[in-house]
Amino acid sequence: MEFSSKFLEKAIEEIALLPGIGKRTALRLALHLLKQPQSQTTDLAKALVDLKTKVKQCKSCHNISDKELCGICANQSRDHSIICIVEDIRDVMAIENTEQYKGIYHVLGGKISPMDGVGPNQLNIESLVDKIKTGKVTEVIFALSSTMEGDTTNFYIYKQIQASENTLKTSTIARGISIGDELEYADEITLGRSILQRVPFENSLKN
Amino acid sequence: MEFSSKFLEKAIEEIALLPGIGKRTALRLALHLLKQPQSQTTDLAKALVDLKTKVKQCKSCHNISDKELCGICANQSRDHSIICIVEDIRDVMAIENTEQYKGIYHVLGGKISPMDGVGPNQLNIESLVDKIKTGKVTEVIFALSSTMEGDTTNFYIYKQIQASENTLKTSTIARGISIGDELEYADEITLGRSILQRVPFENSLKN
Repeated sequence: MEFSSKFLEKAIEEIALLPGIGKRTALRLALHLLKQPQSQTTDLAKALVDLKTKVKQCKSCHNISDKELCGICANQSRDHSIICIVEDIRDVMAIENTEQYKGIYHVLGGKISPMDGVGPNQLNIESLVDKIKTGKVTEVIFALSSTMEGDTTNFYIYKQIQASENTLKTSTIARGISIGDELEYADEITLGRSILQRVPFENSLKN
Repeated sequence: MEFSSKFLEKAIEEIALLPGIGKRTALRLALHLLKQPQSQTTDLAKALVDLKTKVKQCKSCHNISDKELCGICANQSRDHSIICIVEDIRDVMAIENTEQYKGIYHVLGGKISPMDGVGPNQLNIESLVDKIKTGKVTEVIFALSSTMEGDTTNFYIYKQIQASENTLKTSTIARGISIGDELEYADEITLGRSILQRVPFENSLKN
């Protein structure tokens, strides 16, 4: 497609680099911005640059943060002896939204995936092991996705922390049928596991 | 949803102002940018600001342009006596892509639509009528979409230019069954019109 303005062309090119946005959507977005007040575009541009230059990683849990320590790690009323291991900061947001968890997190930044060239050294595993070695941690919760890569990562970390600390409690989040789901539509593996790992009926009354 | 960084929150807020992008997509885009090299974000931000501050409207046809006159209006090898009236600059691009049209354009910037509060004065109709009044235009092609608003706008402009110029030829783009389409799936109005406005068979051999 030919454009009558090289600035429009450049803007479309840059917008189309974003995931899930093609040239046509980029054109639509660029034309939309052209019709809006200039402040919207400058605000957007400033917010993007600020995002990239001012957002840091929490030095303790690798969650994103504006300060050295994120709000969760800095909060002394949370239980710092329980660490929930997640893949991504979106998982932190998802768990925080449930308002059920009062421990702290550790964001790995991905899963071990040899196919994508991601090994243990690319992930924030060393700092996790160091944190556990201090002896202040009593429980580690694995909350990675239940894919082959997730299981591999879980197992790798499990081996690492088992070697360093024997009295540590480890757990994974419960897998089972979603609340509100019909059994007949559930996949066999999930349904099978939900029967094997059944819980006392009294427990289901708690929440 | 709570965010651990106010810069992330601000970026998401600004991105989500774009049409068709919700908070979740905005979050995905923001996290994507965080993982990319900084140059991508600064390039994107610069391209957006350049788009807004440097792109002008062609003073003759209202197409977007980097200069006073757009490339099409400035091109003397094009036929300046034929004007194709379109709604939007995307329509200019679509027609230019066919490489079948050698006249110039006039971009209205919308359609008359009282429901959306768009009257003739909000559109670039006056400059079109002025251009036609110079007497240098021999044909006007209406290429608006065939909706009620498009038809209304066509008719309004038709009345305006009829009053000012009697020898002017007017035409609309041909409506009919798309090339490659099956007749049985075509809508009745299009199919009916394509029979009423049938063309000599020899014409269909030309292209």
